[in-house]
Amino acid sequence: MSDKLTQEDRSTSLATLLSKGWVVQSDRDAIYKEFTFKDFNQAFGFMTRIALKADKMDHHPEWFNVYNKVNITLSSHDVNGLSKRDVKLGNFIEEAAGTK
Amino acid sequence: MSDKLTQEDRSTSLATLLSKGWVVQSDRDAIYKEFTFKDFNQAFGFMTRIALKADKMDHHPEWFNVYNKVNITLSSHDVNGLSKRDVKLGNFIEEAAGTK
Repeated sequence: MSDKLTQEDRSTSLATLLSKGWVVQSDRDAIYKEFTFKDFNQAFGFMTRIALKADKMDHHPEWFNVYNKVNITLSSHDVNGLSKRDVKLGNFIEEAAGTK
Repeated sequence: MSDKLTQEDRSTSLATLLSKGWVVQSDRDAIYKEFTFKDFNQAFGFMTRIALKADKMDHHPEWFNVYNKVNITLSSHDVNGLSKRDVKLGNFIEEAAGTK
């Protein structure tokens, strides 16, 4: 059973993430957000928390880091778009960013 | 005193990195290499070793990761090009990749 987001999911749980600054990409069904921290220590600490969570979920981000910036894209290749796993990981990322 | 690479550095220590698959970018004085691992655990373990080293050197990579792939770009903003720090970090990265 696919966990691809339904229209209802998009207007509820996905909308909550969008209200926090995540943006649906124009060229694919994926969401993106850039996070800025004080320094590399904080940025990589944030990435490490996400890495542990992502590997446990077996659902991984696409991400770019340089010094204090972390750009994250979430999408689910197996459903060719956004799934409930992206929302779950996005919510965890917001929680981790909140502790910066 | 700038530690920007000299022509001699480029034909010796930089050449050694290029022989291992690093490529000088066409649009800026930076080097780039893509590493592929067995899985995310190995890729992020590799990134963590580099992160600790980079923060100790106060010289950080630009890098992108998705699952088992890590793309790394090295350059030194303060000298507007490649420096001895990039070669040092590049050598460490090769060492870390060798343990995969």
